Amino acid sequence: MLVNNIPYKTYLAESEIPNAWYNLRADMKVKPAPLLNPGTGKPLTADELTPIFCEELVKQELDNDTPYFPIPKEILDFYKMYRPSPLVRAYCLEKVLDTPARIYYKFEGNNTSGSHKLNSAIAQAYYAKQQGLKGVTTETGAGQWGTALSMACAYLGLDCKVFMVKVSYEQKPFRREVMRTYGASVTPSPSMETEVGKKILAEHPGTTGSLGCAISEAVEVAVKNPGYRYVLGSVLNQVLLHQSIIGLEAKAAFDKIGVRPDIIIGCAGGGSNLGGLIAPFMGEKLRGEADYRIIAVEPASCPSFTRGKFAYDFCDTGMICPLAKMYTLGSSFIPSPNHAGGSEGILPAPESSHAIRAAIDEALKCKESGEQKDILFGLTGTGYFDLKAYEQFNDGVMTDYIPTDEDLAKGFAGLPKIDA
Amino acid sequence: MLVNNIPYKTYLAESEIPNAWYNLRADMKVKPAPLLNPGTGKPLTADELTPIFCEELVKQELDNDTPYFPIPKEILDFYKMYRPSPLVRAYCLEKVLDTPARIYYKFEGNNTSGSHKLNSAIAQAYYAKQQGLKGVTTETGAGQWGTALSMACAYLGLDCKVFMVKVSYEQKPFRREVMRTYGASVTPSPSMETEVGKKILAEHPGTTGSLGCAISEAVEVAVKNPGYRYVLGSVLNQVLLHQSIIGLEAKAAFDKIGVRPDIIIGCAGGGSNLGGLIAPFMGEKLRGEADYRIIAVEPASCPSFTRGKFAYDFCDTGMICPLAKMYTLGSSFIPSPNHAGGSEGILPAPESSHAIRAAIDEALKCKESGEQKDILFGLTGTGYFDLKAYEQFNDGVMTDYIPTDEDLAKGFAGLPKIDA
Repeated sequence: MLVNNIPYKTYLAESEIPNAWYNLRADMKVKPAPLLNPGTGKPLTADELTPIFCEELVKQELDNDTPYFPIPKEILDFYKMYRPSPLVRAYCLEKVLDTPARIYYKFEGNNTSGSHKLNSAIAQAYYAKQQGLKGVTTETGAGQWGTALSMACAYLGLDCKVFMVKVSYEQKPFRREVMRTYGASVTPSPSMETEVGKKILAEHPGTTGSLGCAISEAVEVAVKNPGYRYVLGSVLNQVLLHQSIIGLEAKAAFDKIGVRPDIIIGCAGGGSNLGGLIAPFMGEKLRGEADYRIIAVEPASCPSFTRGKFAYDFCDTGMICPLAKMYTLGSSFIPSPNHAGGSEGILPAPESSHAIRAAIDEALKCKESGEQKDILFGLTGTGYFDLKAYEQFNDGVMTDYIPTDEDLAKGFAGLPKIDA
Repeated sequence: MLVNNIPYKTYLAESEIPNAWYNLRADMKVKPAPLLNPGTGKPLTADELTPIFCEELVKQELDNDTPYFPIPKEILDFYKMYRPSPLVRAYCLEKVLDTPARIYYKFEGNNTSGSHKLNSAIAQAYYAKQQGLKGVTTETGAGQWGTALSMACAYLGLDCKVFMVKVSYEQKPFRREVMRTYGASVTPSPSMETEVGKKILAEHPGTTGSLGCAISEAVEVAVKNPGYRYVLGSVLNQVLLHQSIIGLEAKAAFDKIGVRPDIIIGCAGGGSNLGGLIAPFMGEKLRGEADYRIIAVEPASCPSFTRGKFAYDFCDTGMICPLAKMYTLGSSFIPSPNHAGGSEGILPAPESSHAIRAAIDEALKCKESGEQKDILFGLTGTGYFDLKAYEQFNDGVMTDYIPTDEDLAKGFAGLPKIDA
């Protein structure tokens, strides 16, 4: 037990990087609801998915039974360029809060893509390359996923076509330039390059775009062009599988310093970080081996978990993608722009700040009660390319909007009529 | 000897972080030329320097004899938030070059300031705090130093006033916002807040500013306001002392993997990175204990070392700062904007790319000769906030200019008349 002599940063040796991803579904008694064909309402088969996704990724997507998937050597070699990521003891934050709690964070921002998204991007690009494909298409909003995929494709010599939500394309020129620097083609969405883009532009000439629209365009291009497939950085089972590397490393690092966390906190949107961070801990819970308090944090401006419905919904505006069962506010819901603050000498990504806030709240509760809990949160990335929001905050012109019940009712009205 | 099994990243343990800075001057037989009083032309005394710099830093600046300065515990604790920095084996770059050479880089970009500048910023801010000062003033061009100092001052609760060259203030709004987020006040220079700024604006109403002008403004504010001192991120002896942590860590990491580098490469402008990286290796050379080939790399657009004169010159436009003996193009020389490319999944700072280019050239020579040299270069920082230049390059509108002999002659004409 080294509890009293914990370093600021615990690194695993490269030889200790986990060599298999963990599939939480294998330990779930109630399996996740299947993706549905939006046309028939029936569960999608592997054959229906292979025109959209790489074959190996379809297997990973549909496999609810295999607990571990070996990580191919080529992916492990790429991981070694930026992994293992450190498990950091937040001594400075503890001191500022004057709390008896011990706060740790798993920091995924130390790579050029600036976030954990690279963990899945390299895996998806690798399988596309293995299948002999020419390239991949995707969408990106904030740009983290697009950046990560561009890096991975550059490394493997794959073509990369990114549809970037038009408002981000214009407001985040630096994200766009990182992607271009890695050789990706970046198209503002909606565009005139796809049927769905033309249709949306005809109906809404001044639209600044949305993630749902960009997904539709990326899927259309992948399906229509031989040698291309579509890849996605969040939401899917395969992504959570790859991101389990975060939690597996965190758990191994905790074992090394003889600590078992009491509370695990992650920000949640598409779920790639949260699902990856908690995977092995949740596995222990499911197998009855240990108990952890797990907290998912989301912005009040986009309250999917806290005020949404657990229902099947569309994933894209064009309604050509599989239907997924999830906490949803309806595919027509558009959240207000949101933002957040900083800590520990790191300028966090806005979404990571939600997790930091929850960790601070828990640490302050410990201060009240005198408990010395061990609190882990996921610091998923840096906010270096989100500084427009920081500028607005510093200038006092940042606005935020928490949706009313009426706003939510409008979104729910668009849910597809599928038996929940 | 682990030469055949070198990890991608070699980290020292936190307990192995060097606990003293190394003062290369102690091993120099010919000591560096002293700073001169611009009024009298005589070497500056400690008494003359203390109105400008903190007392402890004046001592460090003038000490040519003490080989090691212990690093205060508070600074070591801060270092542990982001140090030790990794010594990385550039396996991917080696593979792409198909070279027998082994390439390593010491990566200093993994902190929010994005560069090695934080190593000296925290030291200078610490001594200001120890002296009971209210705050510090400085100038910043590209913004790395200003960002680093803002971080350090926020950590210690010191006031921080940054004069940012006006053209950078406008072209690098994100750098500016990082500084503001850390609570610094950022003023575009020249400004109406100082006498020297007013004078320059009256003479050149449309000027976009220069580093020399920003220095003059920062020094003026420091000298006129009780409780303030001026700090500088490069050029000075004290800065090279603090930056020796880079080289000391690199050397310790090499010892750990049983490697002795043949070639050490650093980009050179103000010298803070180069001086820090090579310090302990150069010390061994001076003491006759080992030999290394050391290469300083600079852009052809600003050829101080390769085409400049070794002479006393002004450090600022206002001519109120000490005169320093250095390779100079004359204080009136204004370089063309310059830029550079990338490697190893990292988007490097433009200046770091100069070192990368030199490392590639040396590795390709090894490919020709079949030699298996060990090549180290300093990767001083990331280019996340320099993406305007990448955008111009990607758009094919980047221009560069290599000065003619006539350009240089104009600069040299402004050198002060001091016995060289």
